[in-house]
Amino acid sequence: MRKFQVITLFPEMLTGVFGSSMMWKAQKEGLVSLETIDLREFGLGPRRQVDDTPYGGGDGMLLMIEPLWKAVAHAKSQDPTAKVVIMTPRGTRWKQSLAQEFSEKEHGYIFICGRYEGYDERIMELVDMELSVGDYVLTGGELPAMTIIDSIVRLLPGVLGGEQSAVIESFSDGETLEFPQYTRPAEFNGLRVPEVLLSGNHAMIAKWRENHSKKAK
Amino acid sequence: MRKFQVITLFPEMLTGVFGSSMMWKAQKEGLVSLETIDLREFGLGPRRQVDDTPYGGGDGMLLMIEPLWKAVAHAKSQDPTAKVVIMTPRGTRWKQSLAQEFSEKEHGYIFICGRYEGYDERIMELVDMELSVGDYVLTGGELPAMTIIDSIVRLLPGVLGGEQSAVIESFSDGETLEFPQYTRPAEFNGLRVPEVLLSGNHAMIAKWRENHSKKAK
Repeated sequence: MRKFQVITLFPEMLTGVFGSSMMWKAQKEGLVSLETIDLREFGLGPRRQVDDTPYGGGDGMLLMIEPLWKAVAHAKSQDPTAKVVIMTPRGTRWKQSLAQEFSEKEHGYIFICGRYEGYDERIMELVDMELSVGDYVLTGGELPAMTIIDSIVRLLPGVLGGEQSAVIESFSDGETLEFPQYTRPAEFNGLRVPEVLLSGNHAMIAKWRENHSKKAK
Repeated sequence: MRKFQVITLFPEMLTGVFGSSMMWKAQKEGLVSLETIDLREFGLGPRRQVDDTPYGGGDGMLLMIEPLWKAVAHAKSQDPTAKVVIMTPRGTRWKQSLAQEFSEKEHGYIFICGRYEGYDERIMELVDMELSVGDYVLTGGELPAMTIIDSIVRLLPGVLGGEQSAVIESFSDGETLEFPQYTRPAEFNGLRVPEVLLSGNHAMIAKWRENHSKKAK
């Protein structure tokens, strides 16, 4: 069973996603374990402090090294061979070939979710990989971590059945292809399904789909 | 107040994210309205059917046109000037400059979340824009929709205070820069904060940060 642990200040952001649809099914069937670790539990002092102002100046607050370090140590104690991943804009861009690669590994993953304030750089001593999902700024690493986990989990053996085959997964060299699809009724609000798709002529259908495939931007 | 409506078969995937942290605060302060619309409520017949097999063959199930159409019509009735966005791998790649652009519009947005099965193409009649968050396959549009909404909402006036300033937001032409940051203690587990950052010499600190900035991959 593949294990994913996510260190976050906002575990409730992940509950709904981990508890729905494909991720819920994969856990129920024992194919994957999805766990959140509340960084606040490793906070310092009675107020469980987790952040502080940056050395050298700056307005924001940074996640402190000590709570992060302890949370990672805790996660490692539950899964000693797990690799540690941190979500950061400067990280390696996530793509389908990486999802494939990650899905084929035997070990688990520990995700560290930063918040917009940033984190103490020394946590990098424990980090195996820095990842980014795209060229946009988010308030935290939670959505990127869930995105990456979703893209890996669906590739694990046994997770998806025939359901995925309608999606054209021709990602290679970062390229996506997709053709238009239609289902009943054949006419709705004056909008008709292309005749060829109703024809039953498989050769013509294949040709039509090929001609109407679009590349991802 | 900016309005975002998300049409989904899994509203519970969004509850935690919309109810936490920055998004929760933005709603509480009346800066933004985040609403989910359950596609199932627009399903057909007593079983509220929302999907069916594709014309022309294929194993998966597609979201049917009629429930999607009715859900969009419902969303439009609540916000007539809203633009309709669908999450799809072939869509325009989301990036920070688009987040900026979207954050400056006056109108609301309606997001349609497909599932891995795909959807009846005729829904495109109602769609203003097709968006993608990256070159990876996900089980549905929910995570991409939340990602895009997060990146927009944090840019709305009044949503973030001084908190964001620790993040170096130098996205332009898709380029990201970020420098390492540190907070207390100055030493932890033998790991020390770089001396210059403790020096109080602002010119040297600025120079060090410039030299240690990294571009996003």
